[in-house]
Amino acid sequence: MDLKFLSMLTVENDSKLVLLVLDGLGGLPHTDSGLTELETAVTPNLDAAAGESICGLIHAIGPGITPGSGPAHMALFGYDPVRFEVGRGVLSALGVGIELGRDDLAARVNFCTVEDGVVTDRRAGRISSEENARLCEKLAGISLEGVRADIRPEKEHRAALVLRGAGLSELITDTDPQRTGQPPLRCEALPDGGEDAERTAALVNSYLDEVAGVLRDEHPANMILTRGFARMPDIPHITDLYSMRAGAIATYPMYRAVARLVGMELVDTGPSFSDQLDALEEAWLDYDYFFVHYKYTDSRGEDGDFDAKVACIEEVDALLPRLISLGPDVLAVTGDHSTPALLAGHSWHPSPLLLRSRWERRDGVESFGESACNRGGLGIFTAVDLMPLMLANAQRLNKFGA
Amino acid sequence: MDLKFLSMLTVENDSKLVLLVLDGLGGLPHTDSGLTELETAVTPNLDAAAGESICGLIHAIGPGITPGSGPAHMALFGYDPVRFEVGRGVLSALGVGIELGRDDLAARVNFCTVEDGVVTDRRAGRISSEENARLCEKLAGISLEGVRADIRPEKEHRAALVLRGAGLSELITDTDPQRTGQPPLRCEALPDGGEDAERTAALVNSYLDEVAGVLRDEHPANMILTRGFARMPDIPHITDLYSMRAGAIATYPMYRAVARLVGMELVDTGPSFSDQLDALEEAWLDYDYFFVHYKYTDSRGEDGDFDAKVACIEEVDALLPRLISLGPDVLAVTGDHSTPALLAGHSWHPSPLLLRSRWERRDGVESFGESACNRGGLGIFTAVDLMPLMLANAQRLNKFGA
Repeated sequence: MDLKFLSMLTVENDSKLVLLVLDGLGGLPHTDSGLTELETAVTPNLDAAAGESICGLIHAIGPGITPGSGPAHMALFGYDPVRFEVGRGVLSALGVGIELGRDDLAARVNFCTVEDGVVTDRRAGRISSEENARLCEKLAGISLEGVRADIRPEKEHRAALVLRGAGLSELITDTDPQRTGQPPLRCEALPDGGEDAERTAALVNSYLDEVAGVLRDEHPANMILTRGFARMPDIPHITDLYSMRAGAIATYPMYRAVARLVGMELVDTGPSFSDQLDALEEAWLDYDYFFVHYKYTDSRGEDGDFDAKVACIEEVDALLPRLISLGPDVLAVTGDHSTPALLAGHSWHPSPLLLRSRWERRDGVESFGESACNRGGLGIFTAVDLMPLMLANAQRLNKFGA
Repeated sequence: MDLKFLSMLTVENDSKLVLLVLDGLGGLPHTDSGLTELETAVTPNLDAAAGESICGLIHAIGPGITPGSGPAHMALFGYDPVRFEVGRGVLSALGVGIELGRDDLAARVNFCTVEDGVVTDRRAGRISSEENARLCEKLAGISLEGVRADIRPEKEHRAALVLRGAGLSELITDTDPQRTGQPPLRCEALPDGGEDAERTAALVNSYLDEVAGVLRDEHPANMILTRGFARMPDIPHITDLYSMRAGAIATYPMYRAVARLVGMELVDTGPSFSDQLDALEEAWLDYDYFFVHYKYTDSRGEDGDFDAKVACIEEVDALLPRLISLGPDVLAVTGDHSTPALLAGHSWHPSPLLLRSRWERRDGVESFGESACNRGGLGIFTAVDLMPLMLANAQRLNKFGA
């Protein structure tokens, strides 16, 4: 749905909407049981919620397309993820809490080890976050002609770099060779980059020369690799589009970044799902729309650990009644994409969805699982349509036309 | 899905993909039994494959739209058939093995009978293919100012004409009046055709005058009718888009033509399905993606012969184990469109699909038929999404975004 169209129909009221994303929720059947992780998990509360919901399956982007978490969340928030593509550098920078202006250029950074001119470890032995912070502090002293460089630690060997100045272009190449045994690459302008890109690439290279000097005597992290140079895309905010105060309760930088990008405020929270529910309860009156992000279903799927993913789902299920008891008018529970333990990675399979609202038809689905949702009343659709469905159920959309 | 987008995500591996098209597979229920042709056929092997698959129904173009075989196959190969429309003339020319350059203009030709200035038989009594070949040879002597005319026999009264020269336009009208009792039409420029079209139409007319002279004393084929003037559309090749070697095992000119148009190589094959399986086995190592086209389900549907269509389906089913035993990573079995015997022609009804892959969820569908597929896990979708689904299941698509 076109965002302007949807925005035009929007009305305000005092309804509460909750989008609970269990990252990488969808799975594939275990070869023994024929049941997916979600179908294996004992989930009385999710099942009860499914019974009070209309269910379906959602494609983040479309049939066959496996999304990264960035585009998958953009879709869940109602944005066409291909049109509103967000560069990796921007997600990194926002994730560590750097404010990005329209002119700023952000990149993802890895500390790495260089020996005899070639990269021998792209992650510098996964240095500690503390070591990372110390090195970033050391690099903060670098000054460039007409541009300020801001480098901040993320986690382990990862950091974010932001260059601030006029006329910076994102049409430049990565310096990460993506494998060891190669020297760090020189940054170059892309073919259609023009003069700004030439100037920006030269500037990145002189910054990296300075970095090499400053880190010369460090070990193992004696250099950085940069990738995903990007500027802030022009994304209309959820708050403006739908006149909703939106709060994000997410613990991982990436998801906090996407939430901020679409205009959500970040709600303080501890790391566990129980902490997140504490935060939700506390912030309940402050927002209309809540995005609650649970990460570990995806992590255990990525590990290929079927049973551990099952346990994560059961952990969420056990605490779900606390969320339900807040009485959200609309509750959507789904994944951003599937992460089947069988594939140990993201996949293209559509995500199960329950949409709990007193204003939906019932579909006879009495358990929350991929097969059950496949028979759900919402059918199979694309994630970008979830936002209008949630808004409709919150009675926040006027009718179109007389 | 946008082709560039899909192409960008593509990775190579050594998986094998097979698309088996039973032309016009879908049907309508027999008035006595309430079962379609596919549901009536005894198909233990297709049923077993369905049990190891995820199933669904696919629209070639969209609800209510009855496609010709050209656009329907374009969709199955992943091309938006409305955007990538292929002119009938091009399909005819490619079908008889004429190489087409970007400047060449192709048309479909019927030999016909003209008496007292009006067409009395649009098919010249369905002359034999041999007679057709003799006449084409006779016409080869015609020479035109600045343009070469190449006419080749197809089957019975059908032939293909290609004009080669600079500045030829496809924006010209047919000369086939489409009914008897009318004179052959003069070729005219279409309103928006411009000077090139005027010049091309004049050239076609002078060619047809020459043809009339050369065939003056022939009977019954003393003239030709031309239609579907078209130039080669600019279609990116499957091979380039997805880094796959693609081989087509098809016996009818039309399907061989579409396959060549999208960059497939033609694999030599005899006419029967068993011959096609021989060809598939022999070429198994030479290609990554195979298009196997079985024609007779459509032919018998067009005849309105329910039982004969059932028998064709059973013929394919009996030999399916030979295909399965090759161990394709991804096998899709479907139709390009429906050809219900009840309608004795193409129809708009979506085609049953089974997608056999170890990486798909199961949907409990245990037989291959329209009603069963209607309850399948893939739901109802458009054929253009089959290619991304097949590529995903072959693990040939990277994820989009981080």
